[in-house]
Amino acid sequence: MQVVMGIDPGAANLGFGVVRVEGNHMVALDGGVVETTPELPMERRLERIHAALSELLEWHEPKAVAIEDLYFGKNVHSAMNVGRASGVAMLAAAQRGVSCFTYTPQAIKMAVCGSGGAGKDQVQRMVGTLLGLPEPPTPDHAADALAVAICHGGSAGQRAAVEALDAAAAPRERLAG
Amino acid sequence: MQVVMGIDPGAANLGFGVVRVEGNHMVALDGGVVETTPELPMERRLERIHAALSELLEWHEPKAVAIEDLYFGKNVHSAMNVGRASGVAMLAAAQRGVSCFTYTPQAIKMAVCGSGGAGKDQVQRMVGTLLGLPEPPTPDHAADALAVAICHGGSAGQRAAVEALDAAAAPRERLAG
Repeated sequence: MQVVMGIDPGAANLGFGVVRVEGNHMVALDGGVVETTPELPMERRLERIHAALSELLEWHEPKAVAIEDLYFGKNVHSAMNVGRASGVAMLAAAQRGVSCFTYTPQAIKMAVCGSGGAGKDQVQRMVGTLLGLPEPPTPDHAADALAVAICHGGSAGQRAAVEALDAAAAPRERLAG
Repeated sequence: MQVVMGIDPGAANLGFGVVRVEGNHMVALDGGVVETTPELPMERRLERIHAALSELLEWHEPKAVAIEDLYFGKNVHSAMNVGRASGVAMLAAAQRGVSCFTYTPQAIKMAVCGSGGAGKDQVQRMVGTLLGLPEPPTPDHAADALAVAICHGGSAGQRAAVEALDAAAAPRERLAG
């Protein structure tokens, strides 16, 4: 059992999603968006994001933070601010001794939908299905954050399954020896 | 008189430079590089950068932090980490109530050398000249950080000069009225 916090970084809307991983089963614990207004200077917005995430980390005590890697689209200015938001999110985790893991949008889609080219709607529906939610989670940024948490949780689940197999295999090896 | 801290953001080597602006005259107070090793996970490197800058801000008590805006070159991965370092630098400033200002590489070169297309060597030499240093400052990242501090200080110097002219003009207006 481990708790994973997923983050979809952004300066205006930073999505977060918290899941509990139990083997290959996952449950949603929390999800939402930290919003900041463009009327504030960027450093103040980053301060607000850092404070909000620090509180969430203290509350949920995740074992890992999984962050969507920057997608460098056409808008360089917004990509820069996504990087800044990602930086303060990683800092908040480090200051609480929580390790960070980054995943590309392709890896996340592959983990959630089985295809790196899946659309936003498809990801949102699959997140709802995998977490056993009555309907796809909203808003988009929260769903994306849950998706990256699932992506990390799935890898962790696979690692746990492999470890369990190894542990189960060990006595057999001894019996065979 | 005001103190400006310039920052050339980077996760491996973050340059900083502190200058005191007195009208159109500037003096270098400090300069150097915060280095982090790639052997540490990124969140630990960001934690170290944040701690080092927080100490420098406490020590120098600058009125403003001037940060070089990201240059998105060919290496997307490194640009992402420059964004993250820039984010934790802005956060450190905000947490001490210091305002941040960002400048593009072109604006910095224009302010220091009078040409947006000036080379790295030329910037380094001009930084040394403008700050009255016996030789151009090194390493590169510290020189770049001093350059962005000069860029901001120059704008501040111009604003101060305009304010002084306005103040001097006011009595004349009253006399003329």
